[in-house]
Amino acid sequence: MKTRSVLLVAFAFCVVHSVAAEPLASWNDGPAKQSIIEFVEAVTTEGSPDFVPVAERIATFDNDGCLWSEQPLYFQLIFAMDRVKELAPQHPEWNTTQPFQAVLEDDHEALAASGVEGVLTLVMASHAGLTTEEFDQVAREWLDTAKHPRFDRPYHELTFLPMVELLEYLRDNGFKTFIVSGGGIDFLRVFAEEAYGIPPEQVIGSSIKASFEMRDGVPVIVKQPEMNFIDDKEGKPVGIHQHIGRRPIAAFGNSDGDLQMLQWTTAGEGRRFGLLVRHTDAEREWAYDRDSHIGKLDKALDEAGKKGWTVVDMAEDWKTVYVPE
Amino acid sequence: MKTRSVLLVAFAFCVVHSVAAEPLASWNDGPAKQSIIEFVEAVTTEGSPDFVPVAERIATFDNDGCLWSEQPLYFQLIFAMDRVKELAPQHPEWNTTQPFQAVLEDDHEALAASGVEGVLTLVMASHAGLTTEEFDQVAREWLDTAKHPRFDRPYHELTFLPMVELLEYLRDNGFKTFIVSGGGIDFLRVFAEEAYGIPPEQVIGSSIKASFEMRDGVPVIVKQPEMNFIDDKEGKPVGIHQHIGRRPIAAFGNSDGDLQMLQWTTAGEGRRFGLLVRHTDAEREWAYDRDSHIGKLDKALDEAGKKGWTVVDMAEDWKTVYVPE
Repeated sequence: MKTRSVLLVAFAFCVVHSVAAEPLASWNDGPAKQSIIEFVEAVTTEGSPDFVPVAERIATFDNDGCLWSEQPLYFQLIFAMDRVKELAPQHPEWNTTQPFQAVLEDDHEALAASGVEGVLTLVMASHAGLTTEEFDQVAREWLDTAKHPRFDRPYHELTFLPMVELLEYLRDNGFKTFIVSGGGIDFLRVFAEEAYGIPPEQVIGSSIKASFEMRDGVPVIVKQPEMNFIDDKEGKPVGIHQHIGRRPIAAFGNSDGDLQMLQWTTAGEGRRFGLLVRHTDAEREWAYDRDSHIGKLDKALDEAGKKGWTVVDMAEDWKTVYVPE
Repeated sequence: MKTRSVLLVAFAFCVVHSVAAEPLASWNDGPAKQSIIEFVEAVTTEGSPDFVPVAERIATFDNDGCLWSEQPLYFQLIFAMDRVKELAPQHPEWNTTQPFQAVLEDDHEALAASGVEGVLTLVMASHAGLTTEEFDQVAREWLDTAKHPRFDRPYHELTFLPMVELLEYLRDNGFKTFIVSGGGIDFLRVFAEEAYGIPPEQVIGSSIKASFEMRDGVPVIVKQPEMNFIDDKEGKPVGIHQHIGRRPIAAFGNSDGDLQMLQWTTAGEGRRFGLLVRHTDAEREWAYDRDSHIGKLDKALDEAGKKGWTVVDMAEDWKTVYVPE
């Protein structure tokens, strides 16, 4: 009995110890992991010159290519394409209008070239007229049924385990974590809480306008075919200001679309942290940067060197890429 | 010694007991206070048919006339007027253009008639070109120095103690509290955290556009002379959708500008709560409703009767109106 108790205590200690000592279990020991831990310890240690009160521990994360994959196309673009194909019989004009024509002809290159605005045009056309509740249902159904062509898994399972661990580690240290994405705010909110532990009110994204109406005496909010806000590049710090009203102390991205968010974040007073995920792993995910149509990482990579932002080498720094099936 | 210990214990018990049993200490016992407590107990008691998980306990509050006074004019309008007078020498055209002319001639009736849009026009004209940090400083200085003409106290002290207690009571019961105001989002954020315990990221309001710029290599966000969003009437449920992405289960207002927010909130499934503060106390605050230029309460009052929303009678229901000096 005595030996068993000692073993149990030792076992319990190890479990507690391993949780406490290895918060980023899927990260290899290396400069990226080290820089994250050093930053978090500096801003959370009372009496440290870099200490930041809990209320100001705001961390913002891009989504596409930072928290989940974005190849062969932004996942929301694939969703919008599926939706456009479904609605195409009611819109013969789409056969000769871009970016709809590209969708109906499966011309991925033309689509990729249409960028965030292309995605939003498709989302706008295919979702205007839906109430917010109808949209939620359509998006949820797609996420539950559609599968990624390469991995044959639902898209919402292609989230990066090391980044999910990073979100948890920051929250365990008093941070409030936000998504700041070029993607559609309502689409993100359908899965962000379950996938990342980020509630809808901490999701910032691009949006189309919406209006309040009474339908048969029941109030509804209806999505309108008009752009409201593009939360990309220069739009990211503006979106952060509108939604959060406080400058983050840490920002995480992977492309030139995140450059201004990292500039804005790291230019604040006191200790700040910027990080870029670099896609270097063609085996387990994809390898692309300066010349990519999607998630181009060029100017931001140059600036990372000058500003001392952490650059994650996916192949080197991550033990595992995706969350377990 | 023994008697003293007993007294100390009894005293300690009373203090703890009074905190636990009287969360809304400045509210008189009556139907309004009762309805609040019944609602909160119903949605927070596990196993209750009305139980709501913590993540969905969203409560939204109007600000002007609901959390602080709004007479003789919206306080932000007085701030904008002071600012317009300060800048007037640089704008001779304001002498003959409304609503500027009304400001320079102290014509309060013309100003009140200009409504939320009037406020925003003044804010827009007087604040465009400022960076977000410069605006914060200007607003903070005004709040620290300007005094209310009737009470000779700083405006941010004319917040309603019973409502501040209500915010705390809800948060103590797992609610996330938001401001949803027709007033300017950046102005509200300057004082909401200190006055109400509501952080900037939980403030929703009207806004002008902003843009990201580099000034001498330093990133700044600059306020632009263009309307972005009017968070009033039909705009309130839309603003709630954009910022929170989840329908509140409780909403608090005081005027017809809050009607759609209360409709949207109380039309959701499950137990919901709507409350209107009615200004009935000319002695301690003001008395106005159906015919007022500011904070008109007419249609929403009729609907409160039909929908069973709680109507607070300020004179009857509140022991104290303002927070202590």
